[in-house]
Amino acid sequence: MTYHKAKKVVIIAEKMLSDKICKIIDASGARGYTVVPAGGRGSHHKHYTSERASVVDDFSTVRIEVIVRDKSVAEKIGNEVVEECFKNYSGIVYLEEVEILRPAKFNGE
Amino acid sequence: MTYHKAKKVVIIAEKMLSDKICKIIDASGARGYTVVPAGGRGSHHKHYTSERASVVDDFSTVRIEVIVRDKSVAEKIGNEVVEECFKNYSGIVYLEEVEILRPAKFNGE
Amino acid sequence: MTYHKAKKVVIIAEKMLSDKICKIIDASGARGYTVVPAGGRGSHHKHYTSERASVVDDFSTVRIEVIVRDKSVAEKIGNEVVEECFKNYSGIVYLEEVEILRPAKFNGE
Repeated sequence: MTYHKAKKVVIIAEKMLSDKICKIIDASGARGYTVVPAGGRGSHHKHYTSERASVVDDFSTVRIEVIVRDKSVAEKIGNEVVEECFKNYSGIVYLEEVEILRPAKFNGE
Repeated sequence: MTYHKAKKVVIIAEKMLSDKICKIIDASGARGYTVVPAGGRGSHHKHYTSERASVVDDFSTVRIEVIVRDKSVAEKIGNEVVEECFKNYSGIVYLEEVEILRPAKFNGE
Repeated sequence: MTYHKAKKVVIIAEKMLSDKICKIIDASGARGYTVVPAGGRGSHHKHYTSERASVVDDFSTVRIEVIVRDKSVAEKIGNEVVEECFKNYSGIVYLEEVEILRPAKFNGE
């Protein structure tokens, strides 16, 4: 099997923004995404403290990752998430290079 | 300390495939792997909806990552997971470049 | 919007080390970090088994990621975590290249 270059977009955001972010991803043509429970600290977040609260209770954030073949699609997802979701809420977006198998499973056009 | 180039394999799969995937990783010579609970949507997945189901209940997927020093070992893990696990189940595999400390902790030969 | 190169540090460690690791990150000047519950197997970890224990109960590890603009800051965080936390406990650190939006949100000087 052959590995193909692709772009991963990672979005870390408050859980309440998940639906809005997933709609942006769906509209981009991406075929899927992965959501992981997350906590942490950002510019506006409270500090994560394992002593004060159970770590499990503190996962009020999500880490969403999506892979698309086309860099411009990845950048568009990132731009839209920042513009539509992060004006009033904290969160970050970043891109990474990845290599994928079975590229037909990743659309993004 | 010096950072050394290595390859990370990320596998996103249904939780019921975890044991099979971990056996493939162990057989590759990799010294360890990390498993994170995940949800999301793929070609065959249901749509993730934070309104309809608790996010915690929806984590029926796992995100497994493993780092090996040798690119060919990484590719072999990816190929075997796709061939042995993803014929009948949805899932994805991708590779990334990473830089590691203490390379002796990562085998993969 | 423009994407800017940055470095991501990923630390996988026992949950009990979280506070110590987060203090190292805070002291580096980084503006935030993301924590995800994790399990798995390392050189000194027990084998992850979905048959013997609930996957949720097995997440006694954390996966912490932090993004900084400056490679030397990323390397310093990695070095300090290994030196101060991983003498007596297992864990790994790795770096990755990422591209970020709004670089002012990521300090790291």
